[in-house]
Amino acid sequence: MVLPFDIMEYQERLNKTKERMEKDGIEILCVTNPSNMNYLTGYDAWSFYVHQMLIVIIDEPQPIWIGRTMDANGAKATTWIYDDNVIAYPDYYVHSDIYHPMDFIGEILREIGQGNRRIGVEMEQFYFTAKSFQRLQRALPDAFFLDASNLVNYVRLIKSDQEIEYMRRAGIIVDQAMSRTIDYIQPGVRENDAAAHLYYNLISGTSEYGGDYPAIVPMMPTGDHTSMPHLTWSEQTFKENSPVVIETAGCYKRYHVPMARTVSLGEPSERLQYVASIVQEGIENTLQTIRPGATCSDLEAAWRNSIKRYGFEKESRLGYSTGLSYPPDWGEHTASIRSDDHTVLQPNMTFHMIPALWFENDGIEISTTFRVTETGYELFTSYPRELIVKGNLGYNTNPMSS
Amino acid sequence: MVLPFDIMEYQERLNKTKERMEKDGIEILCVTNPSNMNYLTGYDAWSFYVHQMLIVIIDEPQPIWIGRTMDANGAKATTWIYDDNVIAYPDYYVHSDIYHPMDFIGEILREIGQGNRRIGVEMEQFYFTAKSFQRLQRALPDAFFLDASNLVNYVRLIKSDQEIEYMRRAGIIVDQAMSRTIDYIQPGVRENDAAAHLYYNLISGTSEYGGDYPAIVPMMPTGDHTSMPHLTWSEQTFKENSPVVIETAGCYKRYHVPMARTVSLGEPSERLQYVASIVQEGIENTLQTIRPGATCSDLEAAWRNSIKRYGFEKESRLGYSTGLSYPPDWGEHTASIRSDDHTVLQPNMTFHMIPALWFENDGIEISTTFRVTETGYELFTSYPRELIVKGNLGYNTNPMSS
Repeated sequence: MVLPFDIMEYQERLNKTKERMEKDGIEILCVTNPSNMNYLTGYDAWSFYVHQMLIVIIDEPQPIWIGRTMDANGAKATTWIYDDNVIAYPDYYVHSDIYHPMDFIGEILREIGQGNRRIGVEMEQFYFTAKSFQRLQRALPDAFFLDASNLVNYVRLIKSDQEIEYMRRAGIIVDQAMSRTIDYIQPGVRENDAAAHLYYNLISGTSEYGGDYPAIVPMMPTGDHTSMPHLTWSEQTFKENSPVVIETAGCYKRYHVPMARTVSLGEPSERLQYVASIVQEGIENTLQTIRPGATCSDLEAAWRNSIKRYGFEKESRLGYSTGLSYPPDWGEHTASIRSDDHTVLQPNMTFHMIPALWFENDGIEISTTFRVTETGYELFTSYPRELIVKGNLGYNTNPMSS
Repeated sequence: MVLPFDIMEYQERLNKTKERMEKDGIEILCVTNPSNMNYLTGYDAWSFYVHQMLIVIIDEPQPIWIGRTMDANGAKATTWIYDDNVIAYPDYYVHSDIYHPMDFIGEILREIGQGNRRIGVEMEQFYFTAKSFQRLQRALPDAFFLDASNLVNYVRLIKSDQEIEYMRRAGIIVDQAMSRTIDYIQPGVRENDAAAHLYYNLISGTSEYGGDYPAIVPMMPTGDHTSMPHLTWSEQTFKENSPVVIETAGCYKRYHVPMARTVSLGEPSERLQYVASIVQEGIENTLQTIRPGATCSDLEAAWRNSIKRYGFEKESRLGYSTGLSYPPDWGEHTASIRSDDHTVLQPNMTFHMIPALWFENDGIEISTTFRVTETGYELFTSYPRELIVKGNLGYNTNPMSS
């Protein structure tokens, strides 16, 4: 299997991780976030529904992968680490009331003389359960535990040129998929059929670039459910004169470019048009502030000031760092675009800016994913950044945008 | 929004949950597993990438939903609980180094006079992180915490007739999707295009039943990667004279019917045919043991004895309870079909039996999902349970099964 990145790049990521470990006084890092495991080794499989871990030892050249027996071959095939560093636990550890994989992992660490060190664990990470921590502590009574949540995530914050290239391909994929899905949607079409079209296009991709699965399924609320951004789809049909919000992402080799759009089936209400124009203006004003040296907080202020003039405010954050991800989230849990986040923008940081507004009975989402460049920003997508109005609803072939 | 089940059914589920709480000495149950939240209330949204919780208080008639502000409307719309029982935390709790949603939740519990009770939490559940438990403990210093992992999962073990009906529909969907995908696969086709077809069919479903997203994406290892069951797909094309394993599930209103099949593109090796026949015989022998009163262990023994005659053994479990699920798993984490699981089968228990064998350089998967009936079993699918051989590779229209 060909790795998506050069081995040198993985080694550089590992070195940067070790630098942070050094700084934080961590001798052993227990990585359980699948995105971080992939980032450091290339490991790519849907095996994170059982416990698995990548162990980075500060004074060892190679990390150790520990997972389920049936996944060990996949770890050998999809990573750059030595086969000897792939260790498997027997299947009786899976979903058992008695045995827990962290018992096994603790035993391995003791066996190789690492049981009494300063161990960083990802405390705030979905695949490291409360019980995982209890059992690992019990298995390693001489260790000193530190919270290393998001340590690797922060290494991921600035992308390499190869990562950016993959995101560009994800952008091409989502442009095409969004366009074709909106072409397809019309009153009378079932929501699930639209979701099926969207999925088909996301994964088929283009003739050059095959798509990977996004870390979040398509979200597609319609009518007054547009005030509920995380609803997926139903078997109901789309209704005339009603709005549809679509939020999805193109994904290429696990790199995401999210995109949200709002579609009006038929003439939009005056209110929706008005709100859309305010959002569009807000996006433009925010984009103008993006440059190295500006902070996340600066971007949020530009947006807030722009919409405040019309009496609007947004309770939720304006965006977040995005890129490499596994379910359940394509956000990287590092920088957020909000008023109290003073992260300084640097070239090759990448964000999903989603200036969505939700009200009691409706909502609007028009988003964009960008890269910080040396002088400003690069957008990953080109699909029109506006309220999409589908007018001639009698025909399915040639939908019009406003 | 119409709930997928009658309110009486939700109330019955809640009552059964409270009975188990009573038995275990739990006064307050903190439910964080999205499947369990859905099971008790109907709540259905992709919002589990931020913290959320359903709180069941043993002496209160209605549970309390707590989640992010932008998800509160969705909780009101998709559940049967009173709007007043939907409580939202502000967005600054999301992905923050300072604030944690469990601080907020603890405060609510104290405010309503529940801070000093016996509180059950799902310690072994992906959406309840190690940090969640620390922060909840800190917020509730007077509470006594108990591990209630899988408490609700065990209530889910025996399905209602309506749940079974939804699984039958999921079975119809996966039968059709598997058949069409295998029709489509041939040498020269890209793996991602086959995955796109599969996804399209899973979600489009039939004209009667629209599909929901499965909790696991299609897994589709090929060639010597068939020894790595949890690999997904690549941009590579399928090769002549090579095997492909497809594992997926039909999903209807969050109810799953998983299915795995092995396809040979061209004449299969003698070895693959031989192994396939042993697996098929093993499945038949195992199916014959299914009846109320038999145990999971009995089923495993039937399988083990059947393949042992040919010198084979299977390290991993033979199957697991399945049904209602959200990512990352369609297994219910309760009964497993393995030698040390003495769960007694009862009518309307449902299992994915996956008698897969993986070797150093290849593997085979032929699975079936069944319901325990009053006298035996019902299969949810009818697609041929055998090694599928695609012979006339020059044509795409009419693939043949062996």
